[in-house]
Order: sequence, then C-alpha cells, then structure tokens
Amino acid sequence: MQAAFFKFKHRVTYAECTIGNHVYYARYLDILEAARGEFFRHAGAPLLPLQESGIAFPVIGLEIAYKGPARYDDLLTVELWINEMKGIRVHFGFKIVHPAGHLLVEGETRHICATTDEKPRRMPPELAERLSSFVRSEKNAP
Amino acid sequence: MQAAFFKFKHRVTYAECTIGNHVYYARYLDILEAARGEFFRHAGAPLLPLQESGIAFPVIGLEIAYKGPARYDDLLTVELWINEMKGIRVHFGFKIVHPAGHLLVEGETRHICATTDEKPRRMPPELAERLSSFVRSEKNAP
Amino acid sequence: MQAAFFKFKHRVTYAECTIGNHVYYARYLDILEAARGEFFRHAGAPLLPLQESGIAFPVIGLEIAYKGPARYDDLLTVELWINEMKGIRVHFGFKIVHPAGHLLVEGETRHICATTDEKPRRMPPELAERLSSFVRSEKNAP
Amino acid sequence: MQAAFFKFKHRVTYAECTIGNHVYYARYLDILEAARGEFFRHAGAPLLPLQESGIAFPVIGLEIAYKGPARYDDLLTVELWINEMKGIRVHFGFKIVHPAGHLLVEGETRHICATTDEKPRRMPPELAERLSSFVRSEKNAP
Repeated sequence: MQAAFFKFKHRVTYAECTIGNHVYYARYLDILEAARGEFFRHAGAPLLPLQESGIAFPVIGLEIAYKGPARYDDLLTVELWINEMKGIRVHFGFKIVHPAGHLLVEGETRHICATTDEKPRRMPPELAERLSSFVRSEKNAP
Repeated sequence: MQAAFFKFKHRVTYAECTIGNHVYYARYLDILEAARGEFFRHAGAPLLPLQESGIAFPVIGLEIAYKGPARYDDLLTVELWINEMKGIRVHFGFKIVHPAGHLLVEGETRHICATTDEKPRRMPPELAERLSSFVRSEKNAP
Repeated sequence: MQAAFFKFKHRVTYAECTIGNHVYYARYLDILEAARGEFFRHAGAPLLPLQESGIAFPVIGLEIAYKGPARYDDLLTVELWINEMKGIRVHFGFKIVHPAGHLLVEGETRHICATTDEKPRRMPPELAERLSSFVRSEKNAP
Repeated sequence: MQAAFFKFKHRVTYAECTIGNHVYYARYLDILEAARGEFFRHAGAPLLPLQESGIAFPVIGLEIAYKGPARYDDLLTVELWINEMKGIRVHFGFKIVHPAGHLLVEGETRHICATTDEKPRRMPPELAERLSSFVRSEKNAP
C-alpha cells in the first residue's frame, strides 16, 4: 500500500540566492520548514494550535544531498512524507524538484515531539494517527 | 562638544550576498542589529540583562539610503550613534563604510523602550544616562 | 481615476520570527521582494526575462513604519503600488496587513532602473507603460 | 600525530533566533559558512582570490546533529577541521560549542572543488597541500 505524500510549491526569490545565481545551501531549510507547516495543516494538525497547547517538533538532526542548483524564479516542488515515526521521533523525507522534473535536493529532517519548553513528550495519539498515513514503509522517494 | 560614536566591524559572507555579488538589501538590517548589540554592551548596558529584566528596544521605523554595493569578503565598518533620545524614543544613526573608505549605506533606525510583552515603558534613568553620551546634537554623520 | 494595485499573500514561518513571537524587522524586506516579483509578473513584465536582457531594479532607499507585530502562521496581505515613476526612478508604496484587517507595516522602497552590471539606464518605454497603470497620483494608501 | 584544527567565535543575534529563544536550525549553516571563510584565510588560501581565479567549493551534502539550543547573545565557538580530502572532495567536520563548554551542534559539510560555473575540477596541488594539515585521520572530534 502506497502512503500519501504532500506537495508544496515555492517560488525562488533573490533573497534566497547567492553569488553565481543559485539558492544558498541554508535557505532550503527555510523552504522545508514552510513546507512542513503546510504539511501539518494538510494532515489536519496545524502547528499553531499545537504550539498553543504546548507541543512542538524541534529538529534534532538532518541529512541533505544537494544534486543541482535551484535558480532565481524557479517554481520548486517540495515533496514531503514521513520516513519513520516511532515513540517521540518523526523523520521527514523530502525531495525538492525543479520545474523541468529533475531532482535538486533530497534528504531527511529528524524531529522529536517536545513541550514548548524543550522537554521530550509523548505524541498525542490522535496526532500520531493523523500523521501515520504519511509514513512510507520503505524509504523510497516518490 | 563632539559625542562619542561606536564602530563595529563585519565581514561579508556568501549568505548575505545575492545574484550580482552584492549584499542583499535586507541583510544590512541583520548587520545593524549585531552592531547595536555591541553598542549597548560598549555603553555598559548589554541587551541580554535588559531583556531578562523585561526591557526591549523594538524597531518602530527606519530609513535607509543605499549608496553602493558591499561585496563578498568586504570588511565593513558600521558607525553607530544616537540621533535623538526623547521620552521613550531612541533614534540610531548609522553609516556602513567600505574598507576603501567610501560610504555604502546610511540611515536611521527608530526604536522605543518597551516591555518584553510589547508595551511602551519609561527608560530607566541610569540607562538613559549611559546612552546620552552617544547623542549627537546635530544629525551630522561622523 | 483610481490606479490599480496589487495584492500578495504570505504565510509567516518560524524562520521569519524572532524571540517574543514576532517577525524580525528585516524579514519584511524579503517578503516585499517576493511581492514585487509577483507584481512585475502580474504587470506583464516578469523580472527574470528583464534580468536576462540586462535590466534590474536595485533598491536605492527605503522608509518603513512598523505599526504592530506579525506573528507565526499569520496569513499576511501585502498591498503594492507605485508612488512615483519618473525617469529611471520607481518608488513602490506598500502596506502589510494582518488577516484581521489592521495595518502592520507600511512604507516605500525606492528603486532605479539599471543594467545588471549596476549602471543606471533608461527604462524601456513598453515597460514604463506597463508599470504606469499602477502609479497613484496621490500617495494615499488603498 | 594530531592534525591542526580551527576555532571561530560567533555571537548570537536576534536575527538568528526564533520563537522560544533558540537559534533557528538553518542559521547554523550561515555561521558555518562564516567559519569556513576564516578557515580558508587561516590556512593561507582565502576564498575570494580563489573565486576570482575561478575556483569554488560548493556544498554537495551535509549531516547535522542538534544536541542543544544556542540562545541570544551566546558567544559560540565553532571548531572546524577536515574529515576527508580525496580527489575533488573535501569534507569538513565541525562542532559548535556553548561558552559553558557543552556541545550544541555537530556534523559534517561535504564540498567539491569546482569551477565558478559549477563544473568539477581538480584541486590545485598547492591548495591541497595547505588544506592537508587540517585533515584528521580518525574522525574524532577535538
């Protein structure tokens, strides 16, 4: 059975580019955060009410492979899914794809469920259930 | 009598540059904030203990003139002083100068003294006194 | 006769917020640049082909008044128009408005038409014509 | 024989912090770039003249573990060394350490030697020799 995955569009700005007309390596993390925000909304668990109830998903690690440059005005597609969800851990897999279809960036961001004052905490069962439909049993990219 | 002013050095990174090898217009505001942080420390009133005692200096306005591009690896000098300090308002004047001596950016950032939950508040007299030696009676750049 | 103006939506991310849950003062400039990019596209003169033909609109000055904080997940509306267009100068007026309707930020960014190697140049007449319908004779906000 | 390693100091600004008073996960990459710039200068091979001669070190991958939050005004120490240098690849190891001594962030950024128009190229032998004294045979942190 194929899990659901989520797509997010992002238009590259001058703010994100550096010398040589390509997106600066750190800016993809900003784009990924915007994509995760929409992912949680799409999954029926928007981050703002979670935050207001004291729940956050801080990043504890990440791994990225940069395959090619995104350039000014490119309309990127971010594909997002969950590689693994176990206990308090949620690992997001992602691909960032050029409008022409080729892969630009791929990797994983690793999060834990925590209180907003930075203590690990059990994920609410309803939230875990909402996220579970985005878990891919095999870590294959879409 | 000439008021004191404060100098801060900053080395331009790729992160701050955009296409065409110049610093992106918003990044100067990040550099100015770093300079103001060191200014307050230099004036004997570092921002962190002020923040911990519930005092902040949010920006309520600014005006900037961009005269020329700063480029990768330029070692910039930020010159900082106070144009005006009256009641709860503090207006910082600044110049950002190229290592070769020419002016790149100049302007003013306008702040108020506020509580950390965003209510205007009277400036502590000791703090006002520490800052007062950086006020220039005439708004002349150094 | 009322000139046209342009609206752009932006969702606030954690990347843009700082301590105290409000958008950092410099990040509005990034948001404004994204809005201007869509403005030029909407006006039938997208910036990428202009850039490829050697034309850019560097910022030479700006003035901003910050009226209230934008916070995480706020869906902001940027309203954009042209205050003045004369010779090589184009001055954009803007307002950034909270979803509840109140004004958060307003001001002006001042640009010139230039070559991509940073020399002032005359604006192509067709481009000037496309932009002219967004000029407001009086600097009234929408 | 112990290889040399390089230390870089960085003061955390509000620009780098997000809600909850900690450095946003992407901003460490900006800090690491500033540290690498000084590393190359320290190693006698500053990046600007390399860039002017057509040589760059784009990032092709990275891995980061976030161990604890850096906060506003923390004076961080970035420790930087080379994990591996082979053919056109240079892998930098790093630790970011809190002023109190505990580890905040660690990981690796993976680069290749390339032309400034993004084609892989052999590293100049003199440059390779300068960098070689920073290679650690075992990937032990300092």
